[in-house]
Amino acid sequence: MTSEALMKQQMQAYIDGFNRSDAQAIADLYADDATVEDPVGAPLRVGKAAIAEFYRASIATGAKLKLAAPIRGSHGNCAAMAFDVELNMPEGRALIHVIDVMSFDEAGRFTSMKAYWGPGDMLLGGQR
Amino acid sequence: MTSEALMKQQMQAYIDGFNRSDAQAIADLYADDATVEDPVGAPLRVGKAAIAEFYRASIATGAKLKLAAPIRGSHGNCAAMAFDVELNMPEGRALIHVIDVMSFDEAGRFTSMKAYWGPGDMLLGGQR
Repeated sequence: MTSEALMKQQMQAYIDGFNRSDAQAIADLYADDATVEDPVGAPLRVGKAAIAEFYRASIATGAKLKLAAPIRGSHGNCAAMAFDVELNMPEGRALIHVIDVMSFDEAGRFTSMKAYWGPGDMLLGGQR
Repeated sequence: MTSEALMKQQMQAYIDGFNRSDAQAIADLYADDATVEDPVGAPLRVGKAAIAEFYRASIATGAKLKLAAPIRGSHGNCAAMAFDVELNMPEGRALIHVIDVMSFDEAGRFTSMKAYWGPGDMLLGGQR
């Protein structure tokens, strides 16, 4: 089983890679055949190329991620974290409240990511 | 699709039911054939009777739940929330950092619950 410490380290590397605008570093955290469902309810993105493209586009918005609480592990091959996406919209600053859940392979790479956020989690005006 | 507002209302009712020690109210938030995986990696509890028993035992520890960030919805039939479990242990006050993910049926009942927390998420001494 992937160690809890390694899973949390990879989750933190995801946040840090995003915030230094390094889409490739994020893609490299994923296994080759990984899936991304962001937001949950949207079509799956499958495989490293599609995933890297998704993060290039996300990072290009200027969004930054900030943890809202400590990263959680599990007794299995999964970890989860609550964070806020801070971004500048034409209407002003905006926040999206998100929880990401990742599953991991034995090497500590993400095999799946699910991002829980809905229309009601997007707040204009920087409100928390 | 279950509305995001209803899903968040049911998640809040879960927190409130737990904190007033009402295991039956929590069990009633679940569909009859629902599953609980708490923590993720542990065997599934299946069905309302097993679920009610689980919450009776959890509540009997004197644990209380406190949201760590606003409840998240999704674009599908799922919602997620980060919270802390506060409890008194023989060694003193303790905290467990948890993220719960629920899926919902059309009536807004939980069809599954997964609780993400691992050994490293249990902190003695009330540390946050």
